[in-house]
Amino acid sequence: MKIIVDAMGGDNAPNEILKGVCASYAENPKAEYILVGDKKRIERAAAENNIDVSKFNIVHTSEVITMEDNPLCVTREKSSSSMGKGLHMLADGEGDAFVSAGNTGALFAGASLIVRRPAGVKRAAIGALLPMDPPVLLLDSGANISVTPEYLEQFAVMGSAYMKKIHGVEKPRVGLLNNGSEDCKGTELQLRAYKLLSECEMINFVGNVEANMVMRDRCDVLVTDGFTGNILLKSIEGMGRLALHTLKDLFYANTKTKMAALLVKSELSGVKKKFDSSEYGGAPILGIAKPVIKAHGSSKEKAFKNALRQAIFCVDAGVSGSISSDMQKLSDIQKARKATTEASDKE
Amino acid sequence: MKIIVDAMGGDNAPNEILKGVCASYAENPKAEYILVGDKKRIERAAAENNIDVSKFNIVHTSEVITMEDNPLCVTREKSSSSMGKGLHMLADGEGDAFVSAGNTGALFAGASLIVRRPAGVKRAAIGALLPMDPPVLLLDSGANISVTPEYLEQFAVMGSAYMKKIHGVEKPRVGLLNNGSEDCKGTELQLRAYKLLSECEMINFVGNVEANMVMRDRCDVLVTDGFTGNILLKSIEGMGRLALHTLKDLFYANTKTKMAALLVKSELSGVKKKFDSSEYGGAPILGIAKPVIKAHGSSKEKAFKNALRQAIFCVDAGVSGSISSDMQKLSDIQKARKATTEASDKE
Repeated sequence: MKIIVDAMGGDNAPNEILKGVCASYAENPKAEYILVGDKKRIERAAAENNIDVSKFNIVHTSEVITMEDNPLCVTREKSSSSMGKGLHMLADGEGDAFVSAGNTGALFAGASLIVRRPAGVKRAAIGALLPMDPPVLLLDSGANISVTPEYLEQFAVMGSAYMKKIHGVEKPRVGLLNNGSEDCKGTELQLRAYKLLSECEMINFVGNVEANMVMRDRCDVLVTDGFTGNILLKSIEGMGRLALHTLKDLFYANTKTKMAALLVKSELSGVKKKFDSSEYGGAPILGIAKPVIKAHGSSKEKAFKNALRQAIFCVDAGVSGSISSDMQKLSDIQKARKATTEASDKE
Repeated sequence: MKIIVDAMGGDNAPNEILKGVCASYAENPKAEYILVGDKKRIERAAAENNIDVSKFNIVHTSEVITMEDNPLCVTREKSSSSMGKGLHMLADGEGDAFVSAGNTGALFAGASLIVRRPAGVKRAAIGALLPMDPPVLLLDSGANISVTPEYLEQFAVMGSAYMKKIHGVEKPRVGLLNNGSEDCKGTELQLRAYKLLSECEMINFVGNVEANMVMRDRCDVLVTDGFTGNILLKSIEGMGRLALHTLKDLFYANTKTKMAALLVKSELSGVKKKFDSSEYGGAPILGIAKPVIKAHGSSKEKAFKNALRQAIFCVDAGVSGSISSDMQKLSDIQKARKATTEASDKE
């Protein structure tokens, strides 16, 4: 298995990216890694951090997509950047998955336009694994700020396939993020999506899920538009961070509380893990012909290693193929439904 | 000062409502309380809980609005319910503020239609005080699931007046909840609202605020549509609850951790307060001629007492009058702007 890595993407590239690759190599020596980026900068960073990059194949390119770049530059003026080149290599079969901590918009656009969507997929979606117990896959988590009910139905099917294959959930429960649990809740989008999801036989729809119930094991897959998904994801991240800071302040308050910290030391690391978003590795872009994983822009070694692990799982489990065949099926259903509706409208 | 209380509203009425009124009376003996509801049930609950209700005026009505009732019933078939009657009393000057833990939709509709909005206010909004340090007023937090940019501009002015009067913030920073900090972010609504808010001289607009920045002291007032506001508010509530449960599990794990709990006992109560939504009293409905406060449906004594305290603060500070005069000013500005736009469109 070959994992293509954008060595230049993210706030801490290439240093933390290289460290993450090394850590992943130590964990999964069977995977090969191809580092795409500025060869000199990669070698310099490797030397500075005492990293042996001789085990990895380096594909040189000097161009880099920044966080400020227009997403579409990846297919145009910056198609030979580390991200553009990596995506082209994936599309051309030179690797099995691509991982980047770079510009989210560019990665999403590049994945959709270079690696492409399988037949029937209207829009890809960025799935974020929410740090719940058990985890909840939120999609879309930010790529498509406006969606149709049909997109949400597709997200539900793709998310279900992912949770089945990667997390072993037999019949993933699909929830629709909404402002109330009753079926009359939400805007026109949620009302129409609720109907479609209820009637979709390919998924296990459990109804509307309110934002305060996401933490209470109501669903395995949560579908919403990218705007609302972004708000939910970031408020969960922000509150997790606040909880950790509050704990830190609590235990650093005085000598007595510092003693308490020693007593709960081992339990505390579990809590830290629970609220630390870097534990949750990358976000898979679902609805692309091959696995593309978005690592957090601020990824350090551990977060990037976890994103790579996610890529390896996706390749191993054949998630992309599974999604492709499910989406072919759903697309046929959606087409047939559209034809029926149009026919009855004519009558 | 007379506070009118819906004695029958909420999951724990009338018991916890009565307890809350008693606690508030102990805190603020200068305020008079008028309990609206089923006299027999109130007296029975008082006897069962050893509460002396002779200090309070009881206005009898046997009808109650349930959580399942259509919001508009408060102005129609259930206008003589405890909520409907209370709102009419407020409108007729028989009290200075109204507090209810009942059906949110009905309270919002009743406040708008019975107590009414001051001239110029297009829509009232439910403001929720987010448990941050310092607190952030989120509006709309759920009443108007779709809004226009002009509504958001009005929410910004109303929220600023509230934070000035009640929380003593001199120049409240107004943020627009969005999926990124750059001014190009969001849907058509956010793009247009950003422009209006930037140009509005009545407020101190600080730009877009992402959901993970709400906890990091970026703004005092956060405006958004009620759908997104509901998602943000409930995810913050849900994560706060999760943090408290996690802490509890941490300290109850074994003998060592229980010892630790004793050492941090006093600091822990501060943390509990921080993440406990009942500490934050009620949500003011802004844009109504007189103060109407929504207490959480699951309010118990403390939460209801805090909602009453909020009502007392609003009356004392003259918030409604202040909002009315600001809204008159803004409405004139909005009308002038509309006239200018229409004139230039004609040219």
